Amino acid sequence: MCEDCGCGDTKLVPVDVHARILEGNDRVARHNREHFEEAGVLAVNLMGSPGSGKTALLEAMMRHAGGRTLRVGAVSGDLATERDADRLRDAGIPSRAITTGNACHLDAEMVHEALHHIAWRELDAFFIENVGNLVCPAVYDLGQDANVVALSVTEGEDKPLKYPTMFRKANLVVVTKIDLLPALPDFDFDALRDALARVMPKPAMVRVSARSGEGMDEWMRWLDARRPRGRDR
Amino acid sequence: MCEDCGCGDTKLVPVDVHARILEGNDRVARHNREHFEEAGVLAVNLMGSPGSGKTALLEAMMRHAGGRTLRVGAVSGDLATERDADRLRDAGIPSRAITTGNACHLDAEMVHEALHHIAWRELDAFFIENVGNLVCPAVYDLGQDANVVALSVTEGEDKPLKYPTMFRKANLVVVTKIDLLPALPDFDFDALRDALARVMPKPAMVRVSARSGEGMDEWMRWLDARRPRGRDR
Repeated sequence: MCEDCGCGDTKLVPVDVHARILEGNDRVARHNREHFEEAGVLAVNLMGSPGSGKTALLEAMMRHAGGRTLRVGAVSGDLATERDADRLRDAGIPSRAITTGNACHLDAEMVHEALHHIAWRELDAFFIENVGNLVCPAVYDLGQDANVVALSVTEGEDKPLKYPTMFRKANLVVVTKIDLLPALPDFDFDALRDALARVMPKPAMVRVSARSGEGMDEWMRWLDARRPRGRDR
Repeated sequence: MCEDCGCGDTKLVPVDVHARILEGNDRVARHNREHFEEAGVLAVNLMGSPGSGKTALLEAMMRHAGGRTLRVGAVSGDLATERDADRLRDAGIPSRAITTGNACHLDAEMVHEALHHIAWRELDAFFIENVGNLVCPAVYDLGQDANVVALSVTEGEDKPLKYPTMFRKANLVVVTKIDLLPALPDFDFDALRDALARVMPKPAMVRVSARSGEGMDEWMRWLDARRPRGRDR
């Protein structure tokens, strides 16, 4: 029923209203994308359930960056509070909060507005940390180059099959909290791999622990390989 | 931007369209509620993030029921698959899947339709297991008597503050997966209690482990106290 969100049918919202909303968003998303491409900035739409470890992934990336000089910044979407943006700033990531009120996902206009308040042109990678939600954020293009979905091992291996819209759009799934695996004897990585293979057009997964730093190298290599090549220093 | 879902402003969707959708839903919800009340069935809208342990809570309730004779049934909402309804049936709970396609929450009409396929009048408690989502399901009345939110300890203590809409509507928060606490040395129950006190009109929490059965007694006592009194056997 969330029709204008694009995540339902058009039972009640007139088709033209629904189409107009997505068209309007897509227009702003194209504008954002032109900005990012022109400046050579990798824009990543980071999605996942509430508590899947999106903020922790970015914090850990900074802690375990070693000698790397990847310049990153972020906007962080939540219904209320600026907690995630505060955490990211504490971790050394220039960040701005987008508080959505009651809205269940970010849209291109919210991101565009936030760009006016952050020195994003100076970055190598710009993270758009979406509202924690495994459904609606997948529908709205924000102008990003890559969709990354954080999925914690505590959520279960079946989530890609039960929330396929999100995983169909994902370029990468970051499996988080692998340090908890000893406490989850039934977790089955083969089942997760199989589920991802059924829904992702090009299945790709890295496993990380924000706590131990395991997997951070692979995650950063993935980001680096995805960066626009024209602007290497 | 999910305006017709009620979880955003009305920037793009005309106010009258938005209002009509919620009014239409509320009408069917009232009809459902009349059914439940007339039959003396406790209807529970069970919400929470993907992987928060909604299905596992109901499975565990059956395993740890002891000699109790609470007759329960369920409908189970997911974008795709009938996995949760299958799990519930395997646990001895008569269940029906509601697959929403792309929709991010159940609505009253989906529940009403499902009622035609399940012997809900024979039940003491009827669970409506919503789509895993900590935002949109809070907005749509389904005709339930009680809103219960499952929140796993791995999601973090700050979720009530970051997703206040959901917790404002909650009659009870079931804190799940407490068997994982030894692996989460930083988890702070006082911080969670404080966060709930800031958003819930009448803060109420039970802590459970579906794995060990801890807390199941308290959860079932809460349900029992909530049941309509006219129909005790």
